[in-house]
Amino acid sequence: MKAHTDKTYDLQLGDLRNKLLSLGGMVETEIANGMRALEERDSKLAEQVIAQDRQVNRLEVEIDEACRRLLVLRQPAASDLRFITTALKIVVDLERIGDLAVNVAERAIDLNQSPPLKPVHDLARLAELCRTQLRAALDAFVDGDVARAEAVIKDDALLDSVYSNLFNELLALMMEDPRNIRRASSLLFVAKHLERLGDHATNVAEMVIYMVRGTDVRHPGSRAAKSAPP
Amino acid sequence: MKAHTDKTYDLQLGDLRNKLLSLGGMVETEIANGMRALEERDSKLAEQVIAQDRQVNRLEVEIDEACRRLLVLRQPAASDLRFITTALKIVVDLERIGDLAVNVAERAIDLNQSPPLKPVHDLARLAELCRTQLRAALDAFVDGDVARAEAVIKDDALLDSVYSNLFNELLALMMEDPRNIRRASSLLFVAKHLERLGDHATNVAEMVIYMVRGTDVRHPGSRAAKSAPP
Repeated sequence: MKAHTDKTYDLQLGDLRNKLLSLGGMVETEIANGMRALEERDSKLAEQVIAQDRQVNRLEVEIDEACRRLLVLRQPAASDLRFITTALKIVVDLERIGDLAVNVAERAIDLNQSPPLKPVHDLARLAELCRTQLRAALDAFVDGDVARAEAVIKDDALLDSVYSNLFNELLALMMEDPRNIRRASSLLFVAKHLERLGDHATNVAEMVIYMVRGTDVRHPGSRAAKSAPP
Repeated sequence: MKAHTDKTYDLQLGDLRNKLLSLGGMVETEIANGMRALEERDSKLAEQVIAQDRQVNRLEVEIDEACRRLLVLRQPAASDLRFITTALKIVVDLERIGDLAVNVAERAIDLNQSPPLKPVHDLARLAELCRTQLRAALDAFVDGDVARAEAVIKDDALLDSVYSNLFNELLALMMEDPRNIRRASSLLFVAKHLERLGDHATNVAEMVIYMVRGTDVRHPGSRAAKSAPP
């Protein structure tokens, strides 16, 4: 964002930026807690994640309002317009990441009602990778850091390959013993939620590049490349 | 949209609306063809769906540009501003529906390499429901029809219940014979893609209500209610 002579306007833009970051922080916590609820079989923590998602949803609506207010009152152009229209889109991805964390928490509650499956190590690794990607995408947004955003887009392939291994590991568990099927299929969905979460982080990174450069890097070839894993 | 004295502006708004509808039509076709590729084991058709998604992606970027151009050149207020900022968000849902159709097509290609599983009738029913929901959401958008949008939101529960039955049906197939596990887990993901597609139709409907009424109906309680199915 370039400097403005209008101080109130700067404050409003700064406020929008802070709201987005605080939304990012909230969904990061949601994922961490959702995964912890799963790993430590803590259904109470899972309930908290589900309850906290209301705050995420409220903040999403607030950010939308702030964007529209800025558009109508300030009639921004150039980089400010890109920032505000990007905010309108990033907020969708962040809110959906919150929904995915809720999905993980719901699975945790469900799984905690049965005896534990043997630990699936790649799941924790996948979750860790997802959080790293989200954090990097948010940092890229704060700093307007194109190189960092590009790294997020590149690293999505790593996340996809961990997901693919995990998918096969879970299928093997199912084949080993039919009593594993219900629980392993729940973990299959947790893995899929995490993989989608990574896609949302990539979306945020793509929009950061657009915001900074003014060129749209989405869909260089086809989005299909992104949906390759099973 | 209310009438304007400025004819060019009206044409630009009309053009944006038509672009959104044509995007809606494209993703509808993608889903229909993705499901047909699966049902008729037609990998060539599946490849076409994947290739066509590029057009969807291109149109998404075009619509974003058109929205930003209108915002900067026309500095719209009130209902026009709501229409344009809603367009910026609806386009995200439509593009993701296209991605989900690509995911279904990719599964079809994968499944066509193995002998067929026995038919799972609820899958076709779920796909049909999804397309009805998407069509209704787009109609609600064209006509600014709040009642229709509300019906879409309400009917998502039906879609979720068909999905839940299907989920159990597929799990039963896996338990019946471990040789079914890989293929049934692929169909599980197809079912999940369709269920998510229904959520995107609901998102569109919610935004139509916002666009018409100016009140945000998203997240009345918590989004958690929406992610209930397994």
